[in-house]
Amino acid sequence: MRKFSRLGIVGLGLMGGSLARAIKRGNLADEVVGFSRRIKTLKKAKKLGWIDIYQLDFQKGVSQVDFLILATPIGVLENYFQEIKTANPKLLVTDVSSVKDFVVKQAEKILGKENNFVGSHPITGSEKSGLDYAPADLFQGRVVILTPTRATDKKSLKKVADFWELLGSKVVYLSPKEHDRILGLTSHLPHLLAFTLAGLLQKEVRQQALKYCIGPGFLDTTRIARSSPDLWTEIFLYNRKNIAVWSRFFCESLVRISRDISTASDVSVQKQLAGAQQLREKVENIKRQRE
Amino acid sequence: MRKFSRLGIVGLGLMGGSLARAIKRGNLADEVVGFSRRIKTLKKAKKLGWIDIYQLDFQKGVSQVDFLILATPIGVLENYFQEIKTANPKLLVTDVSSVKDFVVKQAEKILGKENNFVGSHPITGSEKSGLDYAPADLFQGRVVILTPTRATDKKSLKKVADFWELLGSKVVYLSPKEHDRILGLTSHLPHLLAFTLAGLLQKEVRQQALKYCIGPGFLDTTRIARSSPDLWTEIFLYNRKNIAVWSRFFCESLVRISRDISTASDVSVQKQLAGAQQLREKVENIKRQRE
Repeated sequence: MRKFSRLGIVGLGLMGGSLARAIKRGNLADEVVGFSRRIKTLKKAKKLGWIDIYQLDFQKGVSQVDFLILATPIGVLENYFQEIKTANPKLLVTDVSSVKDFVVKQAEKILGKENNFVGSHPITGSEKSGLDYAPADLFQGRVVILTPTRATDKKSLKKVADFWELLGSKVVYLSPKEHDRILGLTSHLPHLLAFTLAGLLQKEVRQQALKYCIGPGFLDTTRIARSSPDLWTEIFLYNRKNIAVWSRFFCESLVRISRDISTASDVSVQKQLAGAQQLREKVENIKRQRE
Repeated sequence: MRKFSRLGIVGLGLMGGSLARAIKRGNLADEVVGFSRRIKTLKKAKKLGWIDIYQLDFQKGVSQVDFLILATPIGVLENYFQEIKTANPKLLVTDVSSVKDFVVKQAEKILGKENNFVGSHPITGSEKSGLDYAPADLFQGRVVILTPTRATDKKSLKKVADFWELLGSKVVYLSPKEHDRILGLTSHLPHLLAFTLAGLLQKEVRQQALKYCIGPGFLDTTRIARSSPDLWTEIFLYNRKNIAVWSRFFCESLVRISRDISTASDVSVQKQLAGAQQLREKVENIKRQRE
């Protein structure tokens, strides 16, 4: 891969901040340009040496970069695509959003047929958020899903894939729709369940004994309920069709097994638990083989 | 606490095995006697030095101990209570079951009014099971809930509490019913959700890309779905009334938030997630203060 001369990152939260750090450390660009609405964040990132310069004027800044990574909330991407369309319509652009169908459609609609947008979703993160928690190795050994469509430029796709591989990630390809469907099950639904379970504590929060009754199981199962409510509100809403399907499947399964528990149908309950346990073991083994 | 002269442990799985190890290490008894239907397990525990002797004849063995810990499945406890009633009815007895109302009622019914049974539930464990995985410090720094009733002998209660404290645990008291209600939320429901979520993988298990789409969130949320299906079938069934209530509350909450997601009611979704996140933080902080 040719080194980028000027690489822009929009949004310097946990994702954008970690990206900047990893890009500087890997020396993947002559210059890293930071974009953010928060001057304090930009100054901090510059002081840390994670960006070389920052740019408050997005239109001006974006006309001077040769690769732009959007690491912002999904809701503001539309504005950025509009500005890119005006200032630098052929720019190589990617994002890091957890929802792809909506984002890719919007990019292609705004940037037009000759666009150089490639959708990326790094399967990584943290329940923490913000530049202060940005680790240097957030992408090392992780999967990044790229979601090309028929409209995706092949050279652009190759450049973005090479970029992620240089950061130590494994690149996998899925259609935007397939991405959203599978991640709906493997990431979005677990977050929704964790938030819902943590929310039930409200019923017991005044019970003094509660704190003694919380074991490691509860803490693990709800760890991801510590994630940003703003970020996850967006993800749930922009993937709401898949969330609706998986939530329904989940409730149906829960009602089925709860009914068997209520009627003390031990053979049926045991069978369902054993099946689930086997699937969980399978996933653990597959994951371990890959790593 | 006076050292026990002969302490019996029935069942040498993860719990019983860990107990034997910890008791020997802490020198809490002159002799530890192991009881199990599996001679292989008994021989292994003796070889490891976790028990001093083993006894295949329960009636004979139980008449010679001064404290007995039942670390067996809940379903077989009735038989043991019957045998204790015959061989040594005033024996100091405790158990380690995750469900207390059923167990305590059964003990009191079978052993009668003058019984020396005290229900214990150590809030500890592992998704692993069996003697081979029994750690030496499973009880160190953990909570053990004792569930006395009006019928519980005060001296017996004190002896059992002292015993757990000598193993490094913090003793907390709850009524059997209150125990089952709260643990239904903090332990049993999370396990049921984890099993149910892992079970949903069945729908996607043939999808090649699945393995790349499993992130740390999914793995944490379903870790406890690796637990023993036999053990958890028992726990769910013996606490089925509370499971039914908490499952229903959970489904209602999930349906409510899913409906808000479907209608893109971002303010309401955000509010629910933020509330859940705060409760999760609160629990984390309470736990940390205690430790």
